[in-house]
Amino acid sequence: MSFENMAPLVIDGVKNKIVLLVMDGLGGLPMEPGGKTELEAAKTPNMDSLAEKSMLGLHEAIRPGITPGSGPAHLSLFGYDPLKYVVGRGVLSALGIDFNLQPNDVAARGNFCTVDENGLVTDRRAGRIPTEEGQRLCDLLLQNIKIPGVEVFLAPEKEYRFLLVIRAEGLSPNVQETDPQVLGKKPLIASALDKKSERTAEIIQEFVSQAERILVDESPANMLLLRGFAQLPDWPKIPDVLNLKAIAIAMYPMYRGVAKLVGMESPAAAQSYDEEIDMLENFWEDYDYFFVHIKKTDSYGEDGNFEKKVQEIEKVDALLPRIMALDPSVLIITGDHSTPCLMKKHSWHPVPLLFYSKMCRPDNIASFGESACRRGSLGVRFPAYELMNLAMAHAGRLEKFGA
Amino acid sequence: MSFENMAPLVIDGVKNKIVLLVMDGLGGLPMEPGGKTELEAAKTPNMDSLAEKSMLGLHEAIRPGITPGSGPAHLSLFGYDPLKYVVGRGVLSALGIDFNLQPNDVAARGNFCTVDENGLVTDRRAGRIPTEEGQRLCDLLLQNIKIPGVEVFLAPEKEYRFLLVIRAEGLSPNVQETDPQVLGKKPLIASALDKKSERTAEIIQEFVSQAERILVDESPANMLLLRGFAQLPDWPKIPDVLNLKAIAIAMYPMYRGVAKLVGMESPAAAQSYDEEIDMLENFWEDYDYFFVHIKKTDSYGEDGNFEKKVQEIEKVDALLPRIMALDPSVLIITGDHSTPCLMKKHSWHPVPLLFYSKMCRPDNIASFGESACRRGSLGVRFPAYELMNLAMAHAGRLEKFGA
Repeated sequence: MSFENMAPLVIDGVKNKIVLLVMDGLGGLPMEPGGKTELEAAKTPNMDSLAEKSMLGLHEAIRPGITPGSGPAHLSLFGYDPLKYVVGRGVLSALGIDFNLQPNDVAARGNFCTVDENGLVTDRRAGRIPTEEGQRLCDLLLQNIKIPGVEVFLAPEKEYRFLLVIRAEGLSPNVQETDPQVLGKKPLIASALDKKSERTAEIIQEFVSQAERILVDESPANMLLLRGFAQLPDWPKIPDVLNLKAIAIAMYPMYRGVAKLVGMESPAAAQSYDEEIDMLENFWEDYDYFFVHIKKTDSYGEDGNFEKKVQEIEKVDALLPRIMALDPSVLIITGDHSTPCLMKKHSWHPVPLLFYSKMCRPDNIASFGESACRRGSLGVRFPAYELMNLAMAHAGRLEKFGA
Repeated sequence: MSFENMAPLVIDGVKNKIVLLVMDGLGGLPMEPGGKTELEAAKTPNMDSLAEKSMLGLHEAIRPGITPGSGPAHLSLFGYDPLKYVVGRGVLSALGIDFNLQPNDVAARGNFCTVDENGLVTDRRAGRIPTEEGQRLCDLLLQNIKIPGVEVFLAPEKEYRFLLVIRAEGLSPNVQETDPQVLGKKPLIASALDKKSERTAEIIQEFVSQAERILVDESPANMLLLRGFAQLPDWPKIPDVLNLKAIAIAMYPMYRGVAKLVGMESPAAAQSYDEEIDMLENFWEDYDYFFVHIKKTDSYGEDGNFEKKVQEIEKVDALLPRIMALDPSVLIITGDHSTPCLMKKHSWHPVPLLFYSKMCRPDNIASFGESACRRGSLGVRFPAYELMNLAMAHAGRLEKFGA
């Protein structure tokens, strides 16, 4: 059960605030047997002392063993079962580069690729061309592609990846992906998979044909592949279903974008941790729910830089007094997933979770780390998408179930 | 999985008895940081000593953060997933005042309310009129309302609330509730929401029209609102699906009523804890499953009376030797939900759970309280509706699953 069965109360006034502080990729692993994780190695006096008055646990965004991407991991923390609320890859690409996707647009993730003289794919990533080369090719295509009645947007992401958005009347995204996924085959035809998507399929196929002619003399990127055709999902929104006015405070577009999908506002991007907490303070009276996102813990995890990840955690610990001074009803400190420096990538390991509220039954464990969290009352595999229920309850914002 | 997937054995003889001892609202909170909960503060030498031979844990009736009403909370303990087995509010009202609801009756929860000269609701609870005034208005309506071919029953609950039951041929409860839920609107029309419920809707609308005329000069309760139209649910019964002859031993009608919904018998209401244990002894040979309900732990929780709630728990502890003398195969001691004195109402906090059986793998924790239960082998969020499976298994009453 996520929010579907919940009966939110209408709460007036300025109390009952909920703060979700996400250190991206927080969960870690010891670098050697018997060692400490990143969070355990960090000196976090403020979090340790808050832990004593809180419930601890480890959460799972999806299911045991499943490594989440950033989109599903955050949706889960926001109360949306990520197996039920699936975002298309094209939409995630748009969110990731802050593209202002409109409800009728169809977005796709593109790869520049290499094909041989027979049109068979020989490299699905065109030798991982540099980002500048991707930018140049996107510009080249944009200048030359003309499809009557259709607006086409192209934007480079990283290296060989780009975002394609088409804007026209009557689009629908159920179109065959063109990426054959294996080498030695031709790109697939973007055929319609249902009646409603026929016009969209024709537009995309026309785009692909024109692109093929424009790229023919380029090297190594002489063709492109498209997948993840998707439109903005029309999901229940947090302000509507939970009576929560919600704000996302983040430095990167991806996280502000995912938050907007569920009805959060995100008036501006922050430039630093201090600015994030400034925004929290400045918007305190205007919102009920605050999602604060810390990116660099994940970045240093992906770099495998244990020491730097530890330092970032310590920087966040130093921000805690400013947050607590606001007297939130509920403060959740956690990650969206684990990014152990040992692995240099996202992982499936359950994520440390600290849940503070005056209405919680405290675990009296004065330490915030993976081992401490294992002994906490939220258990070792708390479903992340049930956190929203728990936050609503502790903030006095839920009706009881049954008379 | 609740009982739907279980394959019960047919057990002869007088052994393999299961006792479920529910202290209503047992779960609690410390009154100040670092303090003890009600159960932890209580001196419970008998339960502590039984705990050492038992499994401990914390259970959840519904889902994290969801505060259960008494009906769903007990259904869950009886093995019925409360999100699947939903009881209408009208039926709960009938159970709560021991009304002998028949299978074809339609019951509703009523509110006396106040409307202005234009018929717009100005107070959904008519200023919370005293229970005696509710009684007088019910009597007044009963004496004057006549609907040919229909029996109408009205009974006061508490203050402005009452139970309405209509008895006639061919009723069906899918009727629009008349409570607009907000002020400044007229009561809604009790229209049929499906073909089968048309006659019922007509009867209810006729009832409302007559009541409106009868109440017009009353003050402040000059109108009524109806919601939760419902019939007795036709659910699988414990004796049929589990081969358990089951009895409910309780002092209050609500709990005997919910137990009857799932096929328990309840020959008589007990007048005291001692009488409850007398009944347990007297009926020991005649039943397989005994639900024993203790009410006052919840009542003192709702009063916020920590000391009295502690005392009630201690009284129950003193009863334990008499129960153990009967040598049950399984004894479960728990609550239906938490009612922390700190909050003075039902809450979502997981509920302490002691599961004793000679066949269990004991936790060797010689203490029964929230912190001890957190360390137990049943975990921190055992789904209450799986307790019945566990009890059946430990009583040797379940077949294995698969060959």
